[in-house]
Amino acid sequence: MTDAAPIQIALLVEEEFEDRDLLEPLAALKAAGLDAVLVGPFAERTYTGRGGTQVTTAFAAGKVRMRQFAALVIPGGHAPDRLRMRHAMVDLARDAMAEGKPVAAIGHGAQLLISANALRGRTLTCWPSIAIDVKNAGGLYVDRPVTRDGSLITARKSDDLPVFITALLDALGRA
Amino acid sequence: MTDAAPIQIALLVEEEFEDRDLLEPLAALKAAGLDAVLVGPFAERTYTGRGGTQVTTAFAAGKVRMRQFAALVIPGGHAPDRLRMRHAMVDLARDAMAEGKPVAAIGHGAQLLISANALRGRTLTCWPSIAIDVKNAGGLYVDRPVTRDGSLITARKSDDLPVFITALLDALGRA
Repeated sequence: MTDAAPIQIALLVEEEFEDRDLLEPLAALKAAGLDAVLVGPFAERTYTGRGGTQVTTAFAAGKVRMRQFAALVIPGGHAPDRLRMRHAMVDLARDAMAEGKPVAAIGHGAQLLISANALRGRTLTCWPSIAIDVKNAGGLYVDRPVTRDGSLITARKSDDLPVFITALLDALGRA
Repeated sequence: MTDAAPIQIALLVEEEFEDRDLLEPLAALKAAGLDAVLVGPFAERTYTGRGGTQVTTAFAAGKVRMRQFAALVIPGGHAPDRLRMRHAMVDLARDAMAEGKPVAAIGHGAQLLISANALRGRTLTCWPSIAIDVKNAGGLYVDRPVTRDGSLITARKSDDLPVFITALLDALGRA
């Protein structure tokens, strides 16, 4: 009898991420005994948050497949504006949504899901500046601290992190 | 016989504007003898560009009407993400488009036009990350350095500023 494969969660990283949106879910996932890893455009590269936090990626998006991860976390800030221009990142988001795995996007994170054309008919929240983009992409925008539509978990901003993290852990069976 | 009313051009300002996108059109308009003024959320307030440039606004968006301006310039950077959350800014953009006055948007500037619901059937370019948002808003996206569709002038990025400024001055009869 073999041990079950470890549950690995991918957090997407690019320059100008919203520091708390990355650090707090990362800490909570690790505290729950989950293997949370940072996936960026390049592996073993340092990226800097809007608030100055520096993190180092484990994997390059182009070298991984969503099937090796149990869930995807998309922090906010200006990073999603960069993530959505990278095909490998868009592919990860599209695959996660298609596979029905938990996808947790906060703030501007929903921009990546727009680029993955994955929001049609889905209910979600986001940073208010992009609400119209979410609606134009076919999403059903609601202004609530956290919104869960099946495997899709969304929140508006860093102040919503406590309920966002609770919903993510719940989706992973660790609440 | 009275002098003709001066032609006043409004440039929209918010925090984290792309420095060159504001400074270069501003200088070119002034060099052409036009009265270019900075309109922000608040009057006589200092705003800082991504590159550190500090500028001071002349007018608050809520205290002006588009009819007093001959044209509208929307610089890029992260400023449009903030501009689009302010009703007075969205109103200025909507009125400028409805009045058929020259509207010049570069980079992320088109985000404000999406929020003004002013892009349906219009041909334009923008920073590539928001191309899908432009298309979802009914715009016809093209990847060209500068695009002119009637009174709407758009460019992709700061490197396109020379042709963007030429098109703006041409639309104002000052090329």
